[in-house]
Amino acid sequence: MVINQNVAKLKYSLIRLLNEESRKYENSIDLTIGEPDILTEKGIVEDACNYALTHKLGYPPTGGGPEIRKTIADYYNKKCGCSFVADNVIVNVGASEAISSCFRALLNVDDEVIVFVPFYAGYLPMIEMCYAKPVFVDISKTDFKVTPELLEKYITDKTKIVLFCNPCNPTGNVMDYEEINNIVNYLADKDIFVVADEIYSELSFGEFTSFASFDKIKDKLIIINGFSKSHSMTGWRIGYTILPLEYRKPFLNTTLFTLSSPMAVSIAAAQSALTKYSDRSHVRKIYKERAEFMAEGLSKLGFKVVKPKGAFYIFADYSNISDLNSFDFAMDVLKEVQVALVPGISFGLEKYFRISLVSEIDRLGIALERLKTYVENHKK
Amino acid sequence: MVINQNVAKLKYSLIRLLNEESRKYENSIDLTIGEPDILTEKGIVEDACNYALTHKLGYPPTGGGPEIRKTIADYYNKKCGCSFVADNVIVNVGASEAISSCFRALLNVDDEVIVFVPFYAGYLPMIEMCYAKPVFVDISKTDFKVTPELLEKYITDKTKIVLFCNPCNPTGNVMDYEEINNIVNYLADKDIFVVADEIYSELSFGEFTSFASFDKIKDKLIIINGFSKSHSMTGWRIGYTILPLEYRKPFLNTTLFTLSSPMAVSIAAAQSALTKYSDRSHVRKIYKERAEFMAEGLSKLGFKVVKPKGAFYIFADYSNISDLNSFDFAMDVLKEVQVALVPGISFGLEKYFRISLVSEIDRLGIALERLKTYVENHKK
Repeated sequence: MVINQNVAKLKYSLIRLLNEESRKYENSIDLTIGEPDILTEKGIVEDACNYALTHKLGYPPTGGGPEIRKTIADYYNKKCGCSFVADNVIVNVGASEAISSCFRALLNVDDEVIVFVPFYAGYLPMIEMCYAKPVFVDISKTDFKVTPELLEKYITDKTKIVLFCNPCNPTGNVMDYEEINNIVNYLADKDIFVVADEIYSELSFGEFTSFASFDKIKDKLIIINGFSKSHSMTGWRIGYTILPLEYRKPFLNTTLFTLSSPMAVSIAAAQSALTKYSDRSHVRKIYKERAEFMAEGLSKLGFKVVKPKGAFYIFADYSNISDLNSFDFAMDVLKEVQVALVPGISFGLEKYFRISLVSEIDRLGIALERLKTYVENHKK
Repeated sequence: MVINQNVAKLKYSLIRLLNEESRKYENSIDLTIGEPDILTEKGIVEDACNYALTHKLGYPPTGGGPEIRKTIADYYNKKCGCSFVADNVIVNVGASEAISSCFRALLNVDDEVIVFVPFYAGYLPMIEMCYAKPVFVDISKTDFKVTPELLEKYITDKTKIVLFCNPCNPTGNVMDYEEINNIVNYLADKDIFVVADEIYSELSFGEFTSFASFDKIKDKLIIINGFSKSHSMTGWRIGYTILPLEYRKPFLNTTLFTLSSPMAVSIAAAQSALTKYSDRSHVRKIYKERAEFMAEGLSKLGFKVVKPKGAFYIFADYSNISDLNSFDFAMDVLKEVQVALVPGISFGLEKYFRISLVSEIDRLGIALERLKTYVENHKK
């Protein structure tokens, strides 16, 4: 029977496909999924369990109760010099639900969303399921920088959202103050929402500038963030949206009629994470070391590596090494040297691959050795 | 700025409004929200916590892993004599997400969903957010029974889903074998999905017949269920969809691009609930006693009560008592005697109110006394 037209044409995730292919090799090194290997602090898990054992776990308020929302608002205020209150915050089931519910709340049929290439693979289906259209802006030729001049070429009267992922999955790029300031000045007087996915904000190796620091766009800014990456809390499914008060009601209704409310125990875990484990410098240090190690190693092998400034990915151009398309390249690397990469096409960009830095340096070193073998066998 | 047209017109939940109004009275008895007062078995919480403390809580597979899915399939097979396998099951963030994702996966613009009146209040916004249309079929004049003759009047070539809530929120009605059998025979050869929300199935006071027991519709049947009501696990947000294998991929993609995956700890709790705490007879007994007590008490006061056969609600017609519309009636009762009811209009039906049986009998008795006072002051 006929099902939803947008859902019917969704393709299986290439990241998951490579991940599953890699499991067919006993000895493979899987660098596909963006799932932290660093463990959640045990104290967070213990706090969550203590909460579970001593509370009746009824429906939490839709969008989270005042305590966790105030904690999140205060965290952003301290980090970015902004002035959010608890009602600016909605707690979601992971940043994934925060983004998908944001799109559902804002997008009408045929609305356009500016998406910078390369992009996080999940954005596209989320946009298309809203009957809206991604408008791709390739930033691989501008050193992964966004400028007002570039935006100007793509904005139309259908543009509803300009979507930023900063720090960026898949490139590991981090936007600097000046770049954001220029964009903010350009967008400030436009009837366009700025959606900033800042899920990797705690994993910026240098300074991090949030879109929330710019007052000029506070009437149109939607921030997406969560605990999966900063606190290795993927399995807890807890993220959040920060938004102007005037959009609170529609966003609350959207999450209410999507899934009622987030999990009570996960909210307790998030409360513990932000109040007792807010310093993430040790985590940043680990990912920075890995990123530098891998970037240097890959560069020596002849790959053109996007300089990693945050998150836990390496994005590299292999066109010096191979003429294969990115899917065939990833499959070939897996077959020959049992390293599972994600093809660039997953993120909208050919001739690149992504590596997730979620293994210890020793293991990344073995992956590098294997890639060296591959390069030696194939170098043009 | 302009937001999504369907979201913009969503109204705040009347149930929540009455619930919030009731909190303004120090001494009010709140019978609004369908949130079990009976506690989750402590062993379930302990099992979930043990799991959390001894496992890395990474992303669970989208739709849940094979163990919990097989457990759910086996549970339904045992209960209903069907033959589901693990891949027939998708685990969701509560039955709410199961339903909303089901609608997103199936409905196209302008598709019609047959909704029986009175209905669970959440269905409508979920349907409308998919740009689809609820087609209301009032069953209050047919003793809350659905017949092929009634369906025949409302089915068009736009009908994509016939939606059942059995046992029913808000009426507490339970469909018997013959009623379902007649419907199944009528729908078997039609290109229409049968979505059966069976979230209250463990709370049927007599025999329970699942739509899953009817082989004739197994190519078009989507079952929605979960743990919130049977095991008082609302705060864990864990529900599931059982569906034909051919729709597994689009449904998985839908939940993937809505929220990635359910929560790891909640899956552990659900596994414990179904394997170690599957006998719910003690819970059924409590709700049955309350339902009979309340139904008898309200009848004596002159209300026309829908005979409760399951779930934990009483649905009653107050037209012998008052000419007010149901919202004004509920507000008037709250103001005069401090009992918070839900107006029938929340469920699409005037001149009725719903009571949630989630307080102990003593407290329900006090509510009855207060309603007696109200009736004595107002009886026509």
